[in-house]
Amino acid sequence: MFTQSFEELSIKTNGNKLIKITEKILNFVNRSKISNGILNISILHTSASLIIQENADDDVQKDILNFYDKLVPMNEDFYIHNAEGKDDMPAHIKSTLTNTNLTLSIKNNKLILGTWQGIYLFEHRFAKQDRTLLLHILGENNL
Amino acid sequence: MFTQSFEELSIKTNGNKLIKITEKILNFVNRSKISNGILNISILHTSASLIIQENADDDVQKDILNFYDKLVPMNEDFYIHNAEGKDDMPAHIKSTLTNTNLTLSIKNNKLILGTWQGIYLFEHRFAKQDRTLLLHILGENNL
Amino acid sequence: MFTQSFEELSIKTNGNKLIKITEKILNFVNRSKISNGILNISILHTSASLIIQENADDDVQKDILNFYDKLVPMNEDFYIHNAEGKDDMPAHIKSTLTNTNLTLSIKNNKLILGTWQGIYLFEHRFAKQDRTLLLHILGENNL
Repeated sequence: MFTQSFEELSIKTNGNKLIKITEKILNFVNRSKISNGILNISILHTSASLIIQENADDDVQKDILNFYDKLVPMNEDFYIHNAEGKDDMPAHIKSTLTNTNLTLSIKNNKLILGTWQGIYLFEHRFAKQDRTLLLHILGENNL
Repeated sequence: MFTQSFEELSIKTNGNKLIKITEKILNFVNRSKISNGILNISILHTSASLIIQENADDDVQKDILNFYDKLVPMNEDFYIHNAEGKDDMPAHIKSTLTNTNLTLSIKNNKLILGTWQGIYLFEHRFAKQDRTLLLHILGENNL
Repeated sequence: MFTQSFEELSIKTNGNKLIKITEKILNFVNRSKISNGILNISILHTSASLIIQENADDDVQKDILNFYDKLVPMNEDFYIHNAEGKDDMPAHIKSTLTNTNLTLSIKNNKLILGTWQGIYLFEHRFAKQDRTLLLHILGENNL
């Protein structure tokens, strides 16, 4: 039978970094009891985003962070939007370069990810933030 | 009952800029009468794209535009594909850095977007263009 | 009737380049017999990715390749993750700048792509690789 499951996920962040959320997503998939379907993850913000990346060596995440900091510098003469802090406009830009939504497949009760793939919230702001994600599965419950 | 709804959206663009399409998308969601489901938005072009970004301060969009213009310059010695104008190859590259598709969730008759999130068509070409988007919802009609 | 179809697609790659997979995807859509629905394509790796780009002039793909090579150089002083070769960290970064998943619409037995849109596997590593993609359709079979 086709059905749907929704859940809000709140994540407190503490500065510009990558936060692994794979376990929280897998727990939701298990709770949903949906065996085969589509998982859509939406982050409801424009200065934090989502990526899928290597989960084996934490240095990969550090290098990604440093790459984006260098690619989108805080002090660009052309920025007009400065009112919310010098890290705010780079945060918006980094969001557009990565993802606001991720769409994954669930097959035989398993979220389909490669062996080395982890799901990350990419926080682009420096100050503490409360981030909200919507997790949504549409699929078949075979029980 | 699970059902689907499709609609083509035509947008006339007038140069390299961000065009807010949130209202048009919300109107389609309302017309579809689908209460819970997945919305997939596809832009059927390779020199314009889609992003979700801040809808409060228009300066954010100007800064995004300027960032991408600087990141992907028009005059790069290595460009081979020059036949369609000097803004064409940068347009293709900017499309790959952003999105050709956006996948969002509809819950309780509401498209799930954060308070500050708007949906934008990102036109990368300079000349006037007719852009076509396919809007598609798959979900449950609870009426 | 709503139904689902899954298929694994294996692609052998041979160096840093764009590989057109449009025909393989279209064949899966045809085999699925699903007339209207959502196609989700996932690449199960973090050093190769997916893009939709122009399929008419192969020079576009060469220029995209060169742009990304220049944007994400192999020799950056700040890279910590070096153990898997100098092309590995750039590969991870290029993956975050493009897509791990693509979500497309199927309408009236046709995968909805623009006239000039092709689907590409973007291989970022130099050595030969075996890449696995999961193809997944959720939709209605009208037969």
